[in-house]
Parts: sequence; structure tokens; C-alpha cells
Amino acid sequence: MSLVPASLIQKKRDGENLSPEEIRTFIHGISTGEVADYQATAFLMAVYFQGMSLDETVALTQAMLESGDRYDLSSIPGPKADKHSTGGVGDKVSLILAPLAAACGLKVPMMSGRGLGHSGGTLDKLESITGFDVKLSKSRFEHVLAKVGCAMIGQSDKIAPADKKLYALRDVTATVECIPLIVASILSKKLAEGTDALVLDVKVGNGAFMKNKEEARKLGKTLTQVAKKMKLPCRAVITNMDQPLGYAVGNSLEVLESIEVLRDMHFLPEAKDLSSGDLKELTIQLCAHMLEISKITKNLAEGRKLAHSKLADGSAWKKFQELVEIQGGSLDQIMDPRKLPHTSRKVVWTAKKRGYITKFNTENIGKILVELGGGRKKAEDAVDPRVGMIFHKKLGAKVSTGDPIVTVFVGEKTPLSEIEETFYQSVEIMGARKPVPKLIHEIMGT
Amino acid sequence: MSLVPASLIQKKRDGENLSPEEIRTFIHGISTGEVADYQATAFLMAVYFQGMSLDETVALTQAMLESGDRYDLSSIPGPKADKHSTGGVGDKVSLILAPLAAACGLKVPMMSGRGLGHSGGTLDKLESITGFDVKLSKSRFEHVLAKVGCAMIGQSDKIAPADKKLYALRDVTATVECIPLIVASILSKKLAEGTDALVLDVKVGNGAFMKNKEEARKLGKTLTQVAKKMKLPCRAVITNMDQPLGYAVGNSLEVLESIEVLRDMHFLPEAKDLSSGDLKELTIQLCAHMLEISKITKNLAEGRKLAHSKLADGSAWKKFQELVEIQGGSLDQIMDPRKLPHTSRKVVWTAKKRGYITKFNTENIGKILVELGGGRKKAEDAVDPRVGMIFHKKLGAKVSTGDPIVTVFVGEKTPLSEIEETFYQSVEIMGARKPVPKLIHEIMGT
Repeated sequence: MSLVPASLIQKKRDGENLSPEEIRTFIHGISTGEVADYQATAFLMAVYFQGMSLDETVALTQAMLESGDRYDLSSIPGPKADKHSTGGVGDKVSLILAPLAAACGLKVPMMSGRGLGHSGGTLDKLESITGFDVKLSKSRFEHVLAKVGCAMIGQSDKIAPADKKLYALRDVTATVECIPLIVASILSKKLAEGTDALVLDVKVGNGAFMKNKEEARKLGKTLTQVAKKMKLPCRAVITNMDQPLGYAVGNSLEVLESIEVLRDMHFLPEAKDLSSGDLKELTIQLCAHMLEISKITKNLAEGRKLAHSKLADGSAWKKFQELVEIQGGSLDQIMDPRKLPHTSRKVVWTAKKRGYITKFNTENIGKILVELGGGRKKAEDAVDPRVGMIFHKKLGAKVSTGDPIVTVFVGEKTPLSEIEETFYQSVEIMGARKPVPKLIHEIMGT
Repeated sequence: MSLVPASLIQKKRDGENLSPEEIRTFIHGISTGEVADYQATAFLMAVYFQGMSLDETVALTQAMLESGDRYDLSSIPGPKADKHSTGGVGDKVSLILAPLAAACGLKVPMMSGRGLGHSGGTLDKLESITGFDVKLSKSRFEHVLAKVGCAMIGQSDKIAPADKKLYALRDVTATVECIPLIVASILSKKLAEGTDALVLDVKVGNGAFMKNKEEARKLGKTLTQVAKKMKLPCRAVITNMDQPLGYAVGNSLEVLESIEVLRDMHFLPEAKDLSSGDLKELTIQLCAHMLEISKITKNLAEGRKLAHSKLADGSAWKKFQELVEIQGGSLDQIMDPRKLPHTSRKVVWTAKKRGYITKFNTENIGKILVELGGGRKKAEDAVDPRVGMIFHKKLGAKVSTGDPIVTVFVGEKTPLSEIEETFYQSVEIMGARKPVPKLIHEIMGT
């Protein structure tokens, strides 16, 4: 069909549905330049206001998928499954989950992203391990996946380039928060990486992209509906993000916490009494969903059992070592994670009154990491792997005046007064305990 | 203030009002490139959906006005007044009105546009007169205005360049039909040209930009409200565009019809029995409004009387001759308008049944002119001044089978079968007469 971009924009603007052919032509035009960037963004804003039907969202996902390479992993034996998270603070699940799922018999072809804004990114965390290479060629990626059972890399430029272009435009035109655009962006990339099944961790809460359950549920529903139309077994798990997951926030510290969970050991004196219970529980749950939808186990209970055993018997830790070794990371550092990059300057912020921790402003905590240098304001910013925070208290904890709430690992010259002020504004201590939100709110999909 | 374009886009997207300072900064950023085109268009689409308050529209108008030169015509004695039309088919009012208003004692600094899509443009019409120069320097423009009392030119690149840029972007992103954007575009240019008062011909009907009265009324109201806030005496007249104005459509033919009105004579045999009654009446009315809001006459009735007399006594025709001469146009052609560029090929399309003309699809008639080569599909297209149509029948006219409805002036090689089909689809003949819409629906403003 011939392409008149303005007429397709107008159609969407006026609330009409576009045909799959129209969407395909428009997205193709964005790749070729027939559709100018300024037309793409007007279209995105029209979609923001008018939404997209399920069929339109499927067509958009398909068009973005077709804009680049699609990996065919069928030569690698075994069911492939991956997990994607919508992003949060302290979310180091992937680092534990990929080797754990591999230990359970899955192949995990994981393509991850970098941190931006208050959300962390798996690639930044992995790169805290000196030498860890997240840029593998397609053949090397397949080799690692076949040999170890999991591979963890960044998205290649050849995967869904239309999504890459659109995402960059959305980021600077206030069109990120739009469910059909989010869904097409996530699923086009995951379909391109060649996975056979997908578990989605849709985070909701004050540290998540989705602040309320209704929106998160809508996102989860659309993700699973579109995945179904595209024949991808998929499950969405709505999980809580009203506090950092686990106790660590910051790239090196999150690798350290992951290793502690994988090995059931403590290395840092600051962390010796701390529990990574929520992190471990969520990882086991997500692993069980991957196992169930991939038909490795008959049901979720069996999946949980298998995952628990493979974590407990050291199989997952072994896979993690194999993964780090084959992708070039320092074994020395993961054997003794105190050798991971770290700062010598540590500051402890304590409770100014007694009571219970009733609220964290989790997005602010993510932003504090950015201020410390451990995250990005802009995509091109560098990240300091050393800095971060260890939380001594979780939601619902009882505190006395002077109890440490957080230990901050900070660069020698970073001024802290503003950051400290933000931190205290981000933690609420009340006289009466409030109910702690459930870790897993809802399960949807296949 | 520092400029984060995405946050201003988001604010508008979320329905918040922007401060004058924010709007000023954003529009300035569009001029400097700090705001990318793809951000400007996302903003425009957000405005399309969320609208703008009166104060925001004033700020937008002011910011676009300040983006370029503002003519100061205070050294030229006498009140300056101009007219702007939202565009229609056969609308050659400006060609008669500028010299008529000048003959009545006004100074008319008229900057006009070119035709695009189904709407004609005054500049194209003037350029049918061989040699007529619409590109005068500022000093030459002032000289002509001072000497003749009117000057007719195109908008200089230095006038409201932000509007020029935004308009070009709106045209290709389906964001033209948006009242605050239309208002700011019209008024910023008119304020920049240095007029003291403005009459707006807001056309409504199937040949107009605004298809329904409610929208036209809303546009007229916003135009006059913003003008008032900007201290520009302004009147909006909502006028009908359910049929071509006058009998001629096409550049040369419209100049010819204008000269016939100015001279009260007929030149073309095809036109000898035709009336330009609606064209003449609208011109007189708009002139009277210009005279009243400029306080040349005490009221509208006196304005009408003065305009009538200056048309009848040949003063307006004399001004027109002076204008054409000083701007380099051929006097020979206007003295004998049969010498204006014309085609030798003429085709007459006749009524296929008897009855009354009950409807014209006026937009289609405008598009037929484009197909004949007398209008533009894209801004860079060339225009053939020779082609056009003379309508033998207006709305409400009684016709017998075989009566000529239109004479088409067409290039020797233009294929006509599709155009003829479109034409017959654009004229409705019914057994019973329908009421003919009033020429002037409503008057608003100062």
C-alpha cells in the first residue's frame, strides 16, 4: 500500500482502528525514513490518547519484530524460557533466576537492558563483575546458551530496530506510559530473541513504573493477550514494588546479594543479619512459572519444589559460576564477593524516632542511587558500580531511635547533605504498624 | 528558565495549564532547535487532545509573534485595518476589499497566503496578473501602503518564523484542526504585520475548513477573545461556504470577476447574465466592519453606505489600478480582463434533470480546481492561472435538463472524464427547492 503518514496519524487521532497492513506500513516507514521522526511522535501521542485495540497491538508487535533479526534457537535442544521485569529498585532477580532455571533444565536466552532513571538494569549489575562481557555475537550467544543453559546479553542493534528508534523518541516526548506501546516494545524484543515461553514480572507500587494495581493489571492482561495471539506461552505475575527487593540497591552490592542467595552465605558484615527472603521467594516463584509454562513440571507446586532443590543443592550457584566464567567475568570476585568493586567510604543513617517502618518512597531511593552515581539520568551517562545502599530494615520493621536504617556506600567526594535529606523524606516511621503489602498480587496468562 | 521539553509535553499531555513563561520557552526552543521537531509535534498532538486555555493561547500567540519581526507602521498616517479569511472556494473578497477599504480611508497592510488543498489563495490570484509582484521588501511595502492606501504581499520569512515552522509540521502530522493552534497562527501573523484592527471572515460549510457552525463559532469566539487580550480591535464574521463565492473559481477567472465587481461591467460572454451578488454583499459587509472597528464610521450602517458609494463611484476601481500598477502588474490586462491568461478549451457541463440546485459539495469543487492544475496538492506545486470554472447556477436556482451548470476552462491535454464524474457527484438537483443558507450567520467581537 502507498503510505500517507498524515492520514494514518489522523485516523488514529480520530479514534479509528488501523488495519494490520496500515500499522506494518507505518512502522516500516519509520525504519526507512518515509515516516519522519516528527510524524512518528505525533502518532505516538495520538496512540497515547486513543489507545490501540488488541489486534492493533498485535500488529504493532509483529511489525516491530519484523523490523530486525529474529533468532532461531531451535537447533539448541530443550525448552527455552525467559523472564522480563518492568523494572524496579533492588531487582536483581535475573542474576539468580537465569542460572537457577538453567539448573532446572530450561534454556534461558536472556537479553536485558541497562538502568535508566530510578530503575536499575541487569547489564549494569553484571558488568560490576570485572570482565563480564554482555556483548556476545549471535553465534557466541548460542554457544553459551547451549553449553551453560543460560546466556545473559544486551539487546543487539539488529533486534527490533524500530522499537529501539521508537523507544528513544518516546523517552523524550512523554509517550512512555502507554500500555499498547509498552506491550509491543517488550514482546517484540522477547519474540526476537527466540524464547519459547515468557514470564513477565509486572511490578506495581511506588518504586515501579506502574503506580497502581489497576494499571498493572491492565498491562499484565494486555501482555498475556497479545502473547497468546502471537502463540507465545506467557504468564504475567503482578508483584509488589513498595520497597527495594532484598536488602541491596546498587550494582556491585546487588551482585553480592545475589551470590549470597545462590550460596546461602553472608559475606558483608553489614549484611550478616539481613534477610533476602522476598528476593529469594520471588525468584523461586518466577522460576516455578517458567517451569510450569514450559511443561518441565506438571504444576506450580512441583516447579517450586524443583527450584528450591536446585538452589539448595548448589546447582544454581554452579551454573552462575559457569556463566560468569564463559562470559569472561572474574571468578575470583564471585568466589569472594568482597572483592567486587566497592567504596571505602560508608555512611550509616539511623532512625530519628522509634516506631515502625510504614512506608518507603521507593522511586526516590532509586533516584538516590542515581545521585550517588550508580544510575543514569541520561542513556549516555556512565555508571559507578561501587556505590549503593544496604537496607537494614524492611517495611513493617520495628525501630528504636538510633537504629541503622541504611548503610550508604558512597564515593569519597560525593556531597551527601541533600541526598541525606531526600533519604529521610523517603522513609516513614509511625507509631503504629501498617500492613505490609503482599509480594505477589496476581497471576495471569497461560 | 531551563527547558526540559519532555516535561512540558507531559504537563500538557496530562491536561495541566502551562505558564506563559513555559510556553514562551518552548516556542523559543523550537526556533533555536533546543526543542526537536519530534518534540514539537508530540506537543502539538497533546494540544490537539487537551486544548489550551485562553491565557495559554494568548501566550502562544505572543511567543510566535515574538519569534520574528514586528512591523511598526505608525509612521504611516491613518488607521490600519486588515481582513483575514479562514479560506474557501471562489473567495476573491480580498482583491476587491483591499482597494475598497483604502478608498474609504483605511490603510490596508494585507499579507496573504497561497492556495493549498481545496482552498484558494490571494497571492496565486494576484499573480494571474502578469508582472504582479507579491514579494516586496519591508520599505517597499510601507511605501506602497502609504501611497496607495493598500498593499498586498506574501508573508515574509521574518514574520513569525516559529509559526511557519509549526504550521509546516502541523500540515504533515494531522494537527491542523485545533482551535488554539489556528488562533495563534492567524493572530501572530496579523499582529506582526502591524495592523491596528482586524476583521476575520470565519467560513463555515462544506467548502470551509470548519464544517459546522458550532466549531466555527468556537473559533470566532477564541479569535476575538485572544485578540482582545492582545489589545487588537477585532471582529469575527461567521459566513457561509456551502457554495463557491461569486460565480468564478480559478485564479484568472477570479481576478476577472473581481474586476467586474469593481467596475460593474461584464467582460466574458459566459458571465454576462451572472450575478456576483453574494461576493459583492460580503465584501461590503466586511468593509463596513473594518470601517466601524477602526472608527472611520460611527456604525455599521454608515460603513455599508460609505463602502457602497466608494464602489459605485469608481474609487475602489481606481485604487485597484494604482495597486496593480505600483506592484508591477499589467494594466493592459486589468483594463481588458479578457487578456488575462486563459485557456482556449472550454467545456460546458449541463443539468441531467430538471429541478432545483439543492447542494454543492464545495470542497470537491475546490479539489476539481486542483485536478485542473489551478491549485496545489503540496506546497511546492506550481499553479496554472488559466484554468477554472464559471458557475451558471447558484444554490436554489431552478434548472431544466440541458441547462449549463458550469463552464470549465481546461488545459488542452487534461483528461476530463474522472473530473466530470466528480463534478456531477458534487452537484445535487432535487425536485423541491431547499432553503438557501444565509450569507452571514453571526458577528462576534469588538
